Amino acid sequence: MSVTVGVESSQAEVAETFQAWLSEFAEALGSADSQAATALLEPGCWWRDLLALSWDLGSYHGTASITGLLETHLTSNPVSGFALVTEFGPRFLAENGGTIEGFFTFETPLAWCRGVARIREVDGAWRAWTVMTGMEDIKGHERALGARRPTGPRHIAGASTQRNWKDARADSATYTDHEPDVVILGAGQGGLALAANLRLMGVDALILERSERVGDGWRKRYHSLVLHDPVWADHLPYLNFPQSWPIYSAKDKIADWFEFYAAAMELNVWTSADMTDAVYDEGAGVWTLTVQTATGERVLKPRDVVLATGAAGEPNVPDFPGLDQFEGTAYHSSQHAAGERWAGKNAIVVGACNSGHDIAQDLYEAGANVTLVQRSSTHIISQEHGIPAIFGANFVEGGPPTEYCDLMASAYPWPLVLEGAVEGTRQTAVKDAELLASLEAVGFKLNDGPDGTGLMGYALAKGGGYYIDVGASQLIADRKIALAQGSGLSEFTPHGIRLEDGRELEADLVVLATGYSNMRETARRLFGDEVADKCPLVLGIGEDGEIGGLYRRTGQPGFWFMGGPLAWVRVYSKHLALQITADQAGVRSS
Amino acid sequence: MSVTVGVESSQAEVAETFQAWLSEFAEALGSADSQAATALLEPGCWWRDLLALSWDLGSYHGTASITGLLETHLTSNPVSGFALVTEFGPRFLAENGGTIEGFFTFETPLAWCRGVARIREVDGAWRAWTVMTGMEDIKGHERALGARRPTGPRHIAGASTQRNWKDARADSATYTDHEPDVVILGAGQGGLALAANLRLMGVDALILERSERVGDGWRKRYHSLVLHDPVWADHLPYLNFPQSWPIYSAKDKIADWFEFYAAAMELNVWTSADMTDAVYDEGAGVWTLTVQTATGERVLKPRDVVLATGAAGEPNVPDFPGLDQFEGTAYHSSQHAAGERWAGKNAIVVGACNSGHDIAQDLYEAGANVTLVQRSSTHIISQEHGIPAIFGANFVEGGPPTEYCDLMASAYPWPLVLEGAVEGTRQTAVKDAELLASLEAVGFKLNDGPDGTGLMGYALAKGGGYYIDVGASQLIADRKIALAQGSGLSEFTPHGIRLEDGRELEADLVVLATGYSNMRETARRLFGDEVADKCPLVLGIGEDGEIGGLYRRTGQPGFWFMGGPLAWVRVYSKHLALQITADQAGVRSS
Repeated sequence: MSVTVGVESSQAEVAETFQAWLSEFAEALGSADSQAATALLEPGCWWRDLLALSWDLGSYHGTASITGLLETHLTSNPVSGFALVTEFGPRFLAENGGTIEGFFTFETPLAWCRGVARIREVDGAWRAWTVMTGMEDIKGHERALGARRPTGPRHIAGASTQRNWKDARADSATYTDHEPDVVILGAGQGGLALAANLRLMGVDALILERSERVGDGWRKRYHSLVLHDPVWADHLPYLNFPQSWPIYSAKDKIADWFEFYAAAMELNVWTSADMTDAVYDEGAGVWTLTVQTATGERVLKPRDVVLATGAAGEPNVPDFPGLDQFEGTAYHSSQHAAGERWAGKNAIVVGACNSGHDIAQDLYEAGANVTLVQRSSTHIISQEHGIPAIFGANFVEGGPPTEYCDLMASAYPWPLVLEGAVEGTRQTAVKDAELLASLEAVGFKLNDGPDGTGLMGYALAKGGGYYIDVGASQLIADRKIALAQGSGLSEFTPHGIRLEDGRELEADLVVLATGYSNMRETARRLFGDEVADKCPLVLGIGEDGEIGGLYRRTGQPGFWFMGGPLAWVRVYSKHLALQITADQAGVRSS
Repeated sequence: MSVTVGVESSQAEVAETFQAWLSEFAEALGSADSQAATALLEPGCWWRDLLALSWDLGSYHGTASITGLLETHLTSNPVSGFALVTEFGPRFLAENGGTIEGFFTFETPLAWCRGVARIREVDGAWRAWTVMTGMEDIKGHERALGARRPTGPRHIAGASTQRNWKDARADSATYTDHEPDVVILGAGQGGLALAANLRLMGVDALILERSERVGDGWRKRYHSLVLHDPVWADHLPYLNFPQSWPIYSAKDKIADWFEFYAAAMELNVWTSADMTDAVYDEGAGVWTLTVQTATGERVLKPRDVVLATGAAGEPNVPDFPGLDQFEGTAYHSSQHAAGERWAGKNAIVVGACNSGHDIAQDLYEAGANVTLVQRSSTHIISQEHGIPAIFGANFVEGGPPTEYCDLMASAYPWPLVLEGAVEGTRQTAVKDAELLASLEAVGFKLNDGPDGTGLMGYALAKGGGYYIDVGASQLIADRKIALAQGSGLSEFTPHGIRLEDGRELEADLVVLATGYSNMRETARRLFGDEVADKCPLVLGIGEDGEIGGLYRRTGQPGFWFMGGPLAWVRVYSKHLALQITADQAGVRSS
């Protein structure tokens, strides 16, 4: 391995170097020789395993931790058949002093897998500083994609001209003569992406959606809502947006797309369906769910239930004193529709994160006199500078295929993502310096996120706590939206609110942008304390480097959480579907 | 150019050889030196120009014809900026004694263009045996794709939170304060693909659809209908089906997809809208269209009108004597819904092409006693063997990107396609020998298409005339569907029909699978004789090697035909949109 790889080195040299490393790595793993394997890794290497070795999600840091992973699993779950992926990569990246990033496939007795390694040369030896090993398909339950797609309705055994595709789809969705294997609560991005993966794996999933239409989770939010994440990160699995799709989608546009997606992927969804009771029979491993539908009560008996009602949980409305004597209108930010009826009126928005800012801007543009109440501090980035810093070099126009963007993203364990976010946050703040200074000049208090990790830190910790500026900050800096800083809402008065420091503000409208509770509380409401108490809090990065609660076992058999932004659910819906499929089919070895 | 290229030669050699040819070719064309250019072509070369040089579609065969093309246009419409495409190709193909197929880009003063050349080595010199030069985008009217996609609704100048994306979409589609630039009649694949291209070029198009829903052209056809073309050929422009899509789509599935497509591409469609009058003001270059809509009569004044109601035209129902005394039910095949009510009854299907066979099979499976009337002969291929032969090596699972499949397909002029179809038809007949023999054994008469060109010959000549077998042939061979061969329907009797040879058949149901009239007759019904008489017949290959009437000037200013199967409209909707855009924007040089 004497090849010197630099920015100028040829693609052939890059591929050769990576292949040489991969051959040794494959040999070491194939013979379950953890010592030989770790000799090919830097001492501070991060290894993320997404089910392939461990049947769990986990990030392992350093030789001892990685040795533990390998010694625990490689003998019972041996790996083999390593092959370099050549349709994309290996490629040379300047990052971390010169890295070759390469992709490979391999298998275990039960699954087809894919991996990513990033190697660099230190003291003449190429070693990996990150490795990701991820499961793609369970053998015998491979996703029905490409060469495994169905031929057509006339090619199904027993097909008849008398029952066409539409008839068969309708039969499949009524569940009059069979039970769904899985019931998913919520037809947002999480529920849809999971259902699509399950269907492709041959697992029958039914989504229950309380609203009238798929996509209503977005459609029914405030009139002016536009997504903050860019199009390249927002594809649902297996169906990319067309190249004409705007970078930032309006809520109704993405909502309609969700509806199309459910139909195009042939997902079974009951809308206007509300689960009112859930009982788990631990012995039988079966749930009994009571569901109110437009046509009456139904009882379903799936083996798995997935809560996908939104990782942000339910509206958090503290019990403010005096609300009953308030003569104006007060509602949680999730209830805000459009500002137009508040022209000329006094409106107060309590809470200074995304919803608060967006709604304040909407009310201002509608002609209301708006005051934003900021209790402590907010992390602010401009959409222009902050979003590219967060989504990085891959989720851009003309970037790599989404499939590889996702592999690359999932090959950075969350702790590494947060490390990188500190520098990104700092750089964005430099670019946004003028905006931030103008906010500070009117008394707005800023922060740079948990331990300086900015938006990413807040998103992983609690799914909010920041504002991505699309105009409201300038309105605050220009005092067009008034600011009440330093104190939260203490109580309502007949004609407005009183802040904790005693200040009184008159209001016709009070919007409580007071955030959302943890998703575990949704589980508590729907499934009771016994289930909720077994589950971890949702979100937050745990000691194993993974997101709390999402995409993996919860502690309650047959119960799972699914959620997160589009960029997460596209990737991890597959992993959750693989775990459920393995359980349903009984294929797991241990 | 001493490189020897063979199956074993490296990709680098292939690229180098093509690049060397392309450099000389670019030099010759760039200096408008038609003699130098034709020296780089075989004497029997085919050159297809899709607007790039000539602003028309045309295929030119041989040195004299190609010299004519170049000398007529290269001086007034000079070409420059040739560059090799490297993201796909050049690639070595075994066809025609060893061919290198390569792609290139170039420009004219008004447009960005792309080309394909296939070169081979004869007597030590590399010369092209096919060249295609095609327009991609008009400068200043480039399609809003990729880097030209919109940022989002909040980034439009003058955007307000009070009017969101959905409000703006609704405003755009009402046409209360502006006229559409183009009106397209019909929301089938042709109308949708054209409208999508026009919108991306910045031309405001409104589709009028007589039915209640986009996609009804497929949705309302017979219950058992499944598309005969495979998924890889059926993508609409700019939005590929997901990898889970079946190879052969049921009618309702493709119909729903059309509806999604119209919304996703933000196309303006009025459903339940019927154009009842059309008057053209030649001086002003403006149509006055009277349209009946669900909410009343509207008058529209577009500059261009496109008839996209189906290249197959309108149901052809000859005026059979005795129909008024027939006591059973008789209808055209386009009126057939489902066979179920005809169980145990006598059903006759007159006509032995696709619709006739599919409907006969449907009636048989529903339990009817079915007789198929075949007057002359039919071209039969099995779906299994015939479809791969027709769609070739590219429109397959894991084939090249659709964009390049389309470029490659459009780089074979139709006369070359027909030449190739003779061999493909012969090979399919060998594979289908058993099936065909079993049909002949019961008296079914077969043919091999116009001049042996099989399905492709019939499709280009008249859009039908064949059957792609998905089961009915075996039913005929097994005498489960009875056959009345050698004579057509002469007249109806009170209880059935009489054939031309005097045979009488009893029938409760007579389905007239008697085909469709030429699309020009639809133009006649809607626009009158004066317009129709200026137009050519639609379909059939003309002396210039192009399809009659479609995708190009018709003879009537401001009037165009659009249609054909998905694989055609995906490609040529762009070319028609480019011509309309050039007219509307007044950018054409000559």
